[in-house]
Amino acid sequence: MDYQQVLEEIYHEVRPLLGKGKVADYIPALGKINGQQMGMSLRTLAGEHYSVGDFSTCYSIQSISKVFTLALAMQDKGEEVWQRVGREPSGNPFNSLVQLEYEHGKPRNPFINAGALVITDMLVSRFQHPQNNILEFIRKQANDQRIIIDDEVLSSEQATGFTNAALANYLKSHGNLENKVSAVLATYFAHCSIRMNSEQLSQAFLFLANHGNDPLTGEPLLTRSQAKRLNSVMLTCGCYDEAGDFAYRVGLPGKSGVGGGIVAVIPERCSLAVWSPELNSKGNSLAGMKALELFTTKTGISVF
Amino acid sequence: MDYQQVLEEIYHEVRPLLGKGKVADYIPALGKINGQQMGMSLRTLAGEHYSVGDFSTCYSIQSISKVFTLALAMQDKGEEVWQRVGREPSGNPFNSLVQLEYEHGKPRNPFINAGALVITDMLVSRFQHPQNNILEFIRKQANDQRIIIDDEVLSSEQATGFTNAALANYLKSHGNLENKVSAVLATYFAHCSIRMNSEQLSQAFLFLANHGNDPLTGEPLLTRSQAKRLNSVMLTCGCYDEAGDFAYRVGLPGKSGVGGGIVAVIPERCSLAVWSPELNSKGNSLAGMKALELFTTKTGISVF
Amino acid sequence: MDYQQVLEEIYHEVRPLLGKGKVADYIPALGKINGQQMGMSLRTLAGEHYSVGDFSTCYSIQSISKVFTLALAMQDKGEEVWQRVGREPSGNPFNSLVQLEYEHGKPRNPFINAGALVITDMLVSRFQHPQNNILEFIRKQANDQRIIIDDEVLSSEQATGFTNAALANYLKSHGNLENKVSAVLATYFAHCSIRMNSEQLSQAFLFLANHGNDPLTGEPLLTRSQAKRLNSVMLTCGCYDEAGDFAYRVGLPGKSGVGGGIVAVIPERCSLAVWSPELNSKGNSLAGMKALELFTTKTGISVF
Amino acid sequence: MDYQQVLEEIYHEVRPLLGKGKVADYIPALGKINGQQMGMSLRTLAGEHYSVGDFSTCYSIQSISKVFTLALAMQDKGEEVWQRVGREPSGNPFNSLVQLEYEHGKPRNPFINAGALVITDMLVSRFQHPQNNILEFIRKQANDQRIIIDDEVLSSEQATGFTNAALANYLKSHGNLENKVSAVLATYFAHCSIRMNSEQLSQAFLFLANHGNDPLTGEPLLTRSQAKRLNSVMLTCGCYDEAGDFAYRVGLPGKSGVGGGIVAVIPERCSLAVWSPELNSKGNSLAGMKALELFTTKTGISVF
Repeated sequence: MDYQQVLEEIYHEVRPLLGKGKVADYIPALGKINGQQMGMSLRTLAGEHYSVGDFSTCYSIQSISKVFTLALAMQDKGEEVWQRVGREPSGNPFNSLVQLEYEHGKPRNPFINAGALVITDMLVSRFQHPQNNILEFIRKQANDQRIIIDDEVLSSEQATGFTNAALANYLKSHGNLENKVSAVLATYFAHCSIRMNSEQLSQAFLFLANHGNDPLTGEPLLTRSQAKRLNSVMLTCGCYDEAGDFAYRVGLPGKSGVGGGIVAVIPERCSLAVWSPELNSKGNSLAGMKALELFTTKTGISVF
Repeated sequence: MDYQQVLEEIYHEVRPLLGKGKVADYIPALGKINGQQMGMSLRTLAGEHYSVGDFSTCYSIQSISKVFTLALAMQDKGEEVWQRVGREPSGNPFNSLVQLEYEHGKPRNPFINAGALVITDMLVSRFQHPQNNILEFIRKQANDQRIIIDDEVLSSEQATGFTNAALANYLKSHGNLENKVSAVLATYFAHCSIRMNSEQLSQAFLFLANHGNDPLTGEPLLTRSQAKRLNSVMLTCGCYDEAGDFAYRVGLPGKSGVGGGIVAVIPERCSLAVWSPELNSKGNSLAGMKALELFTTKTGISVF
Repeated sequence: MDYQQVLEEIYHEVRPLLGKGKVADYIPALGKINGQQMGMSLRTLAGEHYSVGDFSTCYSIQSISKVFTLALAMQDKGEEVWQRVGREPSGNPFNSLVQLEYEHGKPRNPFINAGALVITDMLVSRFQHPQNNILEFIRKQANDQRIIIDDEVLSSEQATGFTNAALANYLKSHGNLENKVSAVLATYFAHCSIRMNSEQLSQAFLFLANHGNDPLTGEPLLTRSQAKRLNSVMLTCGCYDEAGDFAYRVGLPGKSGVGGGIVAVIPERCSLAVWSPELNSKGNSLAGMKALELFTTKTGISVF
Repeated sequence: MDYQQVLEEIYHEVRPLLGKGKVADYIPALGKINGQQMGMSLRTLAGEHYSVGDFSTCYSIQSISKVFTLALAMQDKGEEVWQRVGREPSGNPFNSLVQLEYEHGKPRNPFINAGALVITDMLVSRFQHPQNNILEFIRKQANDQRIIIDDEVLSSEQATGFTNAALANYLKSHGNLENKVSAVLATYFAHCSIRMNSEQLSQAFLFLANHGNDPLTGEPLLTRSQAKRLNSVMLTCGCYDEAGDFAYRVGLPGKSGVGGGIVAVIPERCSLAVWSPELNSKGNSLAGMKALELFTTKTGISVF
């Protein structure tokens, strides 16, 4: 399979979509970006890597960070994680309070905001400086020490994150946060504000294609079963209330962020990161979704 | 009508209910009270007053304070109040986030917590020290300068009020709070923590039976139309999701609080305050609801 | 009070609203009416009557019939009625299935469609030919044997009433219908299809202003307490999810129908029927709501 | 891989679960079964088959039939199917009306009852005798002409299917059924009442492991892309509101029915049917879910 050729074809075919979506503007720092960019990177377990377009431009990873925090929480707590958060698709937008109320403070899954706040709370309990541990984990997986938190995005999140503050307070009222609301929010906003590029992200997700083992060192980060299960949660819940459509069109475990990034995993083979900042009406990258759909169509690769 | 005789009969008949409800315990400071108390006061426009039982024991007025804050907001903003809060019954518990989400941050009415927070925000915008103005308004209507905020209840509210913090943050995220979340919550918790007894409360509500005019001085606090309208909002929305039942059984405009107080207004005639701390499953005073039902049955008084 | 003068002023003032609403078109037979009509009738306990505009034009009473069926059910079953239907305002549109699901098949109140279907089921159990008994009751109260069911509207309801069929089947699935779905629907559609004019309706509602006694014969139709309670349910639930607004602006117990009629009761004094077929966005007569608001403003009459 | 050995181990390990679930009793005909049965069949693309326990006992396939009807609808209408039904997980029980109301009559996916009714409506439009065509399709895939509709179950469904009648009427009220409610319900109840055993079901699902081609004749029933996509919908939506848990624990596309059957597909390899009539609280076979989880654990097979 000539992956480089495939990526270039995709890049050519999705470029006409640039200009047809809408950059996230819920925080000012995200809204300032030039929306008409698109990049894509693929990295195989054999160590090859292929890239196209704006693959080396850094962007806010936003909700993609929730995969790393979930992996860290699973490392520490194993199946206990699921006592405080579910693993069912939500059927509601990512920041919905409704489901949380009907389900008495136990979020549906770790990738909606409420669930990610509970996972973050687990890390605040586990680590003295949780945002450092999260950042170190990501740097190690990406094999790149230059990855940082974007202070401007972080300030913007903190100044305007009232919906997340509502969710965190509501979780606290149901006894589903162990730590102070302010501490959990600070860590949550920090890990959402990490900046990475597609090359770094494709590298950093490769352990999930590798049965949970670090592809460089072989070190087990998750058990085989945990890696498989994290992938299944990505497939069913990774793209907000468009998860079913993603599974239908792409057919791979994947996780998106409102910064325009999407990362997908092809078990036992490779990982892929695509980025284009303009979003569709569900909050997922418009060109990114199309690029991944084309990738599976062109290569015939899918988990189904 | 021999009101004193009526009150004594009621007192006798409802005493067997004491012990059958449950004192509010969502904040520790409320849970410590002796639940088996009951008092009632009635005050007529002619200046007569009648009382029975624990009528001079002070208690936390809690949501009853929302009538005073709504009156103050209507004084200032008139019909504009309803641009930011509805006046429809809610059909959901008083602290529900669900309705707020479906209705995009405009609370259904000023007596559910979310609506009362918006009203409080109006007063934070209007006054430099809003809790002083609220307290002064209540002292003046009750004709008693000794009324104070209960600091222990206030601390308890502040330490555990995560649901209200969730609501306030959610309102802020929808642009329906002008002031800082923390300032609105501080004022809200303060006015909910005011302590009064039934004698004071019956006096303080008498202006609503008097077409909005201060019964002592004749001073217009609300217009005739505003007073009528505030009464109608109490009748349809005053007792959380038991408002319909209250209208059915009692048939008077009234407002309850989780401290166990309920105040009712008989237009052009009198006001009544009843208190008994044990609540029914809907969060309203068990003996208090029964006492008001007996009052309307025995006297034949009702607005219907 | 010169009621005739008041009605004429109102008629003059609301006429400019004609053309600004929208005639109900959910069934073809309703959509064909000339929307720019308006009539109003008032009848006092003393036997006087006053009318203006199109007061003698007949229209489909639709949901106004639910007051008569509730009265018949209360006659028979008294307080037992409330074991199968609530008396709380709904906070949702009149034909919502959502609340029914959350509340496990017990409708919120007898005036939303689901609740009215349960009330109709009680009459189907009570009478061999329930629609005859309902019609006779209405004819007797209106003192007019000419009142009939509109066959064209009835056929239209039957042919297109899928939402009501959904509600009835759902009630049946929860065991809250005793009779066959088809029998309950047939009776329900029949009583909604009764045609009356405003003069007849104001007469037919007068017993509710008269403590439940027939104003012509003195015969007790409901007890004093039942009449009061039925009025309270009208005030809190009579105008769908605009009930709070109706209480706020009008301040009287009242019931509306999508045919454009609204009837209101002034206890111990009179009843009023107003009709204008164009509806506002909540499904209540646009000019009718305004006419009743003007009536209470001009006369100072209100229950508050 | 010694599949026969694996199935026997599983059979041994799950038998202690028999007696711990609850047979579906929503219709009398289902409730009469002996719950303590369990059987399992696996069939490979190479034509091998392996079975254990009560693999030749027939049972009501219920919702499993929805996979066959979806395949038939996709054959005919391709991507047009998704104009009338979504493909997102529901987050609500299979028979919920709530989501349908919020989403204005477009069901979330083809496997909740509302969605399956829309799919059935497509087949009622396509075929003159749709239940014959559905039955023939299944017989052909199962390679067994003896498969029949269970008349007793069918009568039971028709006599008590009020929730489905509610859903169908509601869909009709939103214009999302082309045919008569009664015709759609009759076909729906018929295909849910088909009886099959696990051996037949594993054979009948094999085309979904074979890129949509009939494994016996090679005839294309679905395109490769359609087969992949149908599998993805099974994975995200196949087990009601336990779909996420199924993906997590089993990691295969699968579809369950309240008769106690579950079928799973391993793309490019084999299909598996398991049956045990006792259900867990989510309506899926208790022992069946465990058996499939053990299968993937023991074999290491999963799509992730």
